[in-house]
Amino acid sequence: MPAPMRAALDAARAAANAGEVPVGAAVVANGAIIAVAANAPRTLHDPTAHAEIRAIRAAAEVLGSDRLEQCDLWVTLEPCAMCAGAIAHARIARLYYGAEDAKGGAVAHGPRFFAQQTCHHRPEVYSGIGEDEAAGLLRAFFAERR
Amino acid sequence: MPAPMRAALDAARAAANAGEVPVGAAVVANGAIIAVAANAPRTLHDPTAHAEIRAIRAAAEVLGSDRLEQCDLWVTLEPCAMCAGAIAHARIARLYYGAEDAKGGAVAHGPRFFAQQTCHHRPEVYSGIGEDEAAGLLRAFFAERR
Repeated sequence: MPAPMRAALDAARAAANAGEVPVGAAVVANGAIIAVAANAPRTLHDPTAHAEIRAIRAAAEVLGSDRLEQCDLWVTLEPCAMCAGAIAHARIARLYYGAEDAKGGAVAHGPRFFAQQTCHHRPEVYSGIGEDEAAGLLRAFFAERR
Repeated sequence: MPAPMRAALDAARAAANAGEVPVGAAVVANGAIIAVAANAPRTLHDPTAHAEIRAIRAAAEVLGSDRLEQCDLWVTLEPCAMCAGAIAHARIARLYYGAEDAKGGAVAHGPRFFAQQTCHHRPEVYSGIGEDEAAGLLRAFFAERR
């Protein structure tokens, strides 16, 4: 398991322990993890506080720029439209994600945002890394709440 | 001009004066404006700092909840995919926007996010309010920079 996806999965597990849907993300610049974040909209009272948004904002703060052109984003779940849009705005170079999200994903499902003509930056996309563990965390979380 | 769009247009003008693409937004709850924000990604070193995201985050903080079910969002420009996604996550009741954005909009253009099956909440949408002034601010901003 690549270290950034390990960090993202650990953040996802922490999210579950906090009662949040277990999704985690990490941003890598020049081979170093510069930001790790967990999904936290309820805890933070912030509907935009998905793991990807939080990791991108933290990385941009670290780098002092709104452009993360040298950065890769690792996330345990296929990004939604909000997060795919943020990835494009941030000019993320490569996106690595774990589990597919047929219900809310916007990369391989629904709007397939990066394939839209109105998308002005397309990262390279790699999926399926850590998929079993990422999907398992989500299944366990929702099973407990049913 | 409705007061929330007036506030959003004033925020857009302030954005232009700060060197940012002139877009502004306001959130209304029970008839009162509870948040106003300008587009500020460069100033804040935050690629997610569109006017809508900032206004939604501020309103959620005011209300102490990640759900803005009683709230309306007013914005000078058609929201992009990131912001349309955030509007859905926040459960915004009504969206009022000014100018159309054929190049980057995600409501009436591109992914038309609210019409996607993977969109889990659709606000009522009203467009064209304050459109001339909103579009004029954008045209002047980009003309100056050409």
